[in-house]
Amino acid sequence: MPAGRMASIKGDIGLVQLTRNILALGLAIVIAAGCFVGARAQADPLPSWNDGAAKKSITDFVAKVTTQGSADFVPPAERIAVFDNDGTLWCEQPEYFQALFALDRVRAMAPQHPEWRETEPFKAFLSGDKEALAALGEKALLVLVEAAHSGMTTEEFSKSVADWLAQAKHPRFSRPYNELVYQPMVELLSYLRSNGFKTFIVSGGGVEFMRAWAEKAYGIPPEQVVGSSGVVKFEMGANGKPELMKIAKVEFVDDGPGKPVGINRFIGRRPIFAFGNSDGDWQMLQWTAAGSGARFAGIVHHTDEVREYAYDRQSKIGKLDKAWDEAKAKGWTVVDMKQDWKTVFPEKP
Amino acid sequence: MPAGRMASIKGDIGLVQLTRNILALGLAIVIAAGCFVGARAQADPLPSWNDGAAKKSITDFVAKVTTQGSADFVPPAERIAVFDNDGTLWCEQPEYFQALFALDRVRAMAPQHPEWRETEPFKAFLSGDKEALAALGEKALLVLVEAAHSGMTTEEFSKSVADWLAQAKHPRFSRPYNELVYQPMVELLSYLRSNGFKTFIVSGGGVEFMRAWAEKAYGIPPEQVVGSSGVVKFEMGANGKPELMKIAKVEFVDDGPGKPVGINRFIGRRPIFAFGNSDGDWQMLQWTAAGSGARFAGIVHHTDEVREYAYDRQSKIGKLDKAWDEAKAKGWTVVDMKQDWKTVFPEKP
Repeated sequence: MPAGRMASIKGDIGLVQLTRNILALGLAIVIAAGCFVGARAQADPLPSWNDGAAKKSITDFVAKVTTQGSADFVPPAERIAVFDNDGTLWCEQPEYFQALFALDRVRAMAPQHPEWRETEPFKAFLSGDKEALAALGEKALLVLVEAAHSGMTTEEFSKSVADWLAQAKHPRFSRPYNELVYQPMVELLSYLRSNGFKTFIVSGGGVEFMRAWAEKAYGIPPEQVVGSSGVVKFEMGANGKPELMKIAKVEFVDDGPGKPVGINRFIGRRPIFAFGNSDGDWQMLQWTAAGSGARFAGIVHHTDEVREYAYDRQSKIGKLDKAWDEAKAKGWTVVDMKQDWKTVFPEKP
Repeated sequence: MPAGRMASIKGDIGLVQLTRNILALGLAIVIAAGCFVGARAQADPLPSWNDGAAKKSITDFVAKVTTQGSADFVPPAERIAVFDNDGTLWCEQPEYFQALFALDRVRAMAPQHPEWRETEPFKAFLSGDKEALAALGEKALLVLVEAAHSGMTTEEFSKSVADWLAQAKHPRFSRPYNELVYQPMVELLSYLRSNGFKTFIVSGGGVEFMRAWAEKAYGIPPEQVVGSSGVVKFEMGANGKPELMKIAKVEFVDDGPGKPVGINRFIGRRPIFAFGNSDGDWQMLQWTAAGSGARFAGIVHHTDEVREYAYDRQSKIGKLDKAWDEAKAKGWTVVDMKQDWKTVFPEKP
């Protein structure tokens, strides 16, 4: 065999070998990438939740409705998850944060409104009577909030909320109110979305109040926030530009039986997953749980007076009584904040 | 140089050559894939639109708001597009389709309601008086629709709409009503979504009526349909299951100045793109166009009496007068159905 031919053959062997090496390298990269993806998928998506029945009920539910071919499989378009806000996604003590916002606003506006000193609920706010404030209930607070913010555009209102959040601090935790969201619930929202769920807020709170900060805090865009609302009026402004003016009149109270009504109006289909913390969420939980197929109904039970607050049947804010009884009877998930949550609030930024 | 060394060098050259060949092949695959993607991207996304100013205004707008680094770039989350339904996404002649649905329902229910024969708008419906029907306007029609469908759950209502669509046919085109959507607009919705827009219906029509078929017809899910609504009440049914009952009372009319109000309530941010066809869309178009940054306002002008209908300033249904004047003054896009659309309705399935 001539040297040239020999070299050619050796060269061919070399070619074959190199091809194999390159293919093997490619395969190794693919396998490595696969392992990496596998490792990521196996990382705990709910790291702030202690292992226990509550956490397991959530992950079991998500697994069964997202497993193709499972009897409980739900197509992504129908994976609607709804969350109350006050006491479920963020703290609601010692008073609803929106009431504290309104209080600050009313104080600032009071000199222009001497008539408020003799009229409830303004009187209770201006005199700093916390008990009277709590006794007025969520609906009255909404009247106050709307009344205190009439005569401004929706965009001006949104800015006033952002400005307040930038400077106001919680009386006990000394942190901005939008830092007092529940870290385990923020993780839950994200976990559901990564499993094809569309997450909505369905809250008794004012819809425009929540929209001012919910996207940043929870990753929930304005169009997925359902809440109570005041009347808004379309007007042609002095500058020739159309404006939406906020009127001091309650239009819709998205609380109690108003929650399934609000869900029907805004979302238009029944959720398969709902989370609340009080009797104001009772009907929303009933409406969700009564649908056909797999359904999840969950309640945050405030049991942690050290890290947050402890309250339920006797509380003026976030009273949990009838919904708790039904949760026990129906086997809904009840989260024990003290036992089930490793952390309550996110670390300070 | 020994033969072995020579062969080795030749082998090395072979290795280098093979490596180059493999890399070149890989590069060729990447380029080929790139060309394929490029070819796909260049395929006309609006094939039912004739080339012209209207089509160009749409594609130019989409290009500028989606080009990263462009002064007009809009982040995907803010790419909100709103569409009127009647006369913009589907036909609205010779009468609003929802009125025809209500007429059929009222006829079916009339024997149980003798009082309807003497009360408007039932009288006009039951006597088949089309002029009286049109003269009653959209708001009266909604009263009728809601009244005609009280005493049933939201789910029963949704089924009654689906049943009607399955058997009713348009008097002129002899096709199911949900086949009388505008093919160019269906393409436009899809084109916007493929460019990161979120598409919404904002219509004077009943929200539950539209939700029964909008997802299949337009790819718009129930939670992105904004419309007029009747009161809905949460009740515990006889079977111990909660129900949402439809009450014969109008709650919200999402028409005229109600459209920007509905947008604020349901979507919570100002659209950057709006399409309508009548004065009922005027304020929605004004509200959209008055936002800061790049905005698109479009009107479908019904000019094609051969393939569809021709009507504008004098029409009782879908009157286009003030909004048309403002469109001309402000340079909004006006689509001439006869000139701008290659086809009007989709091919029969």
